[in-house]
Amino acid sequence: MAGVSVIGLGTVGSETVRLLLEHEVELRSVCDSDPARLKRLTVPARVRRLKDFDSALRDSEIIVELIGGVGPAKKLMLKALRAGKHVVTANKHLLSRHWPEVFAAARKAGTQVRFEGAVAGCIPIIQALRTGLAANKVLSIHGILNGTTNYILSKMAHDGGSMKQALAEAQRLGMAERDPSLDLSGADTTHKLSILASLVSGAWVKPQLIPCRGIEGIESEDIRFAVDKLGRTPRLLGTARFGDGLEAHVQPAFVPLKHPLAAVHGGYNAVFVDCDPAGDLMFYGKGAGAGPAASAVVSDVLELSAGVRGPLPAAAPAAPLLPESAAPRYLKLKVKDVPGALGSITTTLGRAGVSIAQIHQSAVHNPRHWVPIMIVTHATERAPLEKALKSILSSSIVTRPFTCLRILD
Amino acid sequence: MAGVSVIGLGTVGSETVRLLLEHEVELRSVCDSDPARLKRLTVPARVRRLKDFDSALRDSEIIVELIGGVGPAKKLMLKALRAGKHVVTANKHLLSRHWPEVFAAARKAGTQVRFEGAVAGCIPIIQALRTGLAANKVLSIHGILNGTTNYILSKMAHDGGSMKQALAEAQRLGMAERDPSLDLSGADTTHKLSILASLVSGAWVKPQLIPCRGIEGIESEDIRFAVDKLGRTPRLLGTARFGDGLEAHVQPAFVPLKHPLAAVHGGYNAVFVDCDPAGDLMFYGKGAGAGPAASAVVSDVLELSAGVRGPLPAAAPAAPLLPESAAPRYLKLKVKDVPGALGSITTTLGRAGVSIAQIHQSAVHNPRHWVPIMIVTHATERAPLEKALKSILSSSIVTRPFTCLRILD
Repeated sequence: MAGVSVIGLGTVGSETVRLLLEHEVELRSVCDSDPARLKRLTVPARVRRLKDFDSALRDSEIIVELIGGVGPAKKLMLKALRAGKHVVTANKHLLSRHWPEVFAAARKAGTQVRFEGAVAGCIPIIQALRTGLAANKVLSIHGILNGTTNYILSKMAHDGGSMKQALAEAQRLGMAERDPSLDLSGADTTHKLSILASLVSGAWVKPQLIPCRGIEGIESEDIRFAVDKLGRTPRLLGTARFGDGLEAHVQPAFVPLKHPLAAVHGGYNAVFVDCDPAGDLMFYGKGAGAGPAASAVVSDVLELSAGVRGPLPAAAPAAPLLPESAAPRYLKLKVKDVPGALGSITTTLGRAGVSIAQIHQSAVHNPRHWVPIMIVTHATERAPLEKALKSILSSSIVTRPFTCLRILD
Repeated sequence: MAGVSVIGLGTVGSETVRLLLEHEVELRSVCDSDPARLKRLTVPARVRRLKDFDSALRDSEIIVELIGGVGPAKKLMLKALRAGKHVVTANKHLLSRHWPEVFAAARKAGTQVRFEGAVAGCIPIIQALRTGLAANKVLSIHGILNGTTNYILSKMAHDGGSMKQALAEAQRLGMAERDPSLDLSGADTTHKLSILASLVSGAWVKPQLIPCRGIEGIESEDIRFAVDKLGRTPRLLGTARFGDGLEAHVQPAFVPLKHPLAAVHGGYNAVFVDCDPAGDLMFYGKGAGAGPAASAVVSDVLELSAGVRGPLPAAAPAAPLLPESAAPRYLKLKVKDVPGALGSITTTLGRAGVSIAQIHQSAVHNPRHWVPIMIVTHATERAPLEKALKSILSSSIVTRPFTCLRILD
């Protein structure tokens, strides 16, 4: 039986070790550069505790990389692949940023790279896309890929509170980092979407090329409006559409309340896949936490350990992305309560070719006379709206922040 | 490359053939005892059209059984396995009724039996349970496994119409059989639950042993009550709980409106899995239709054709099931509008140890003076409730039909 070495003994690493010991796997060594972590871990005497990565590489045929980050993890992974080892990883940063290099090295060495734990925690979405849906052509993916932002948005929808309150609660529960910017800004979702889209398309979808807007501007009044007037609720979505070219973007979207993605509450993740001929599917589960992540990592180890091999993802060079397709959009602006303000905004939108479907002005005036104006557009592309928005925001009749979301049909 | 033969060229079989021709698979023959079906099919000249099963068995290493039914299909499958062939099937009746025999034959011959298409159409739930969640202990499964009944229940909830109307509409859309009794009664769900529970537990869960109640008695007033008073909506669930013993049952249940299972509308299926350490997962997709079913069948063929092998499910003999665990329940009775009727019912329930949490009497009287009484119980086991129900239904103050549902927490 192939030997396994787990490198990186943080919370996911420790849980991975604990789970591996419950299964028929030959765990040969555990490895961490931090002696305290090594010491803390409970493993049988036969499992070697190693401080340096090279000994672990020599030791085992299956290397579980859980050190995270990019620099040292990348060096370790490429070294392992070149030495003919199989690699299991949950490292979304590394994979999304160095996709072609990693898979070229694996292809050259004839080894496997498995990464179920890198996207959507315990949800076996990588397996589904690799083999379960292999008979299908994937047409599109809509993913709730970040538990922190989903917790915040569903908490705001449920309690009617502010984002600040929801974020504080998420931090209290350990569901948000002290610095939550990678989550709120959509950057984390971008990495995961990059992996899913690269896997499906067979060509690297560079995370840096994916247009990304976070949830930061969303206020409780936006959610109330979406629920009451549009029958929708916001979700931060990573979207990819596959056809003659590839469209990919990360942004909050208003999702119909009856859509399965609207039933994804709290820290859960979900990936909604439209494919042919199977139609719509959705995969739902916990996106974060040591247990869910370790469960995904261990499923990969079990398969490799049982001798199951599969084709490596194609890793063609990155191609440019198509511009985002047209969709109805929601725009909320805080506008000075002066005559002509509304006319000026609608004129600017009209000139850019953005056609307005609904416009609402809240009756409650802000004490400083900034009145929220909610605008719902007909299907419009992103470029003209961005152009109009830039011009509107540069005028003195509008103040920041503003809110802009895609509306899902 | 292993040769593939598709036997049974109905709608799923034809779609399977069409899909296989789009992939790198060596389709050697197609086979059906009906010459008209053989003739109708468009296949390249290299694919042999066969009328008898034996030629197909000789022909190929991977046999795709899509003839359905039990008798001839079972004979064919066992013959194929004994001849050392791998079998792919979507035959839920055959598998659920002859689970130990089928897998004993496969084990003896050292061949594989794949059955992704037998449960929940295109949803890769068999793969998830076999490998994707292999690191986990599955604690329970709640499945919406029948698209027809889910269509009917969600249509009734949406339109407020009767079951008769919803059924007629389902039949018009081709989503229900002319004789829908196998779907409405829960029997179809029982077969699928049997397969899932057998796969997870490693011992045959006989479909005949699974207590089963269908959706036939449910009326629009039950759904209105559930939504308005309980914040819930009905779904026909196949439930299995795994622990020191196995509990399995099929019955309609009121599911909280915020639960992901409540977001499964129309003809969709979903399997909600609670496991350790991954927590809750849900898998959602189309449960019926040629495309979804063929997509599942072809994913199995592609894996076998690529040489991927896996362990066969354990198939220990059937063990007795545990009685259904306690849960709050909903009971609607049509009661004669006479003094003392309500007292008699509540006394009977009380004597059986069934404790009442809520009781509602509709203000609108029935012209024939049968008044619907809605009762919500505290958590109660099934046996005492059935006993009380039997006694109540035998009295002249209550008429049939009645409604009884489990309430999901």
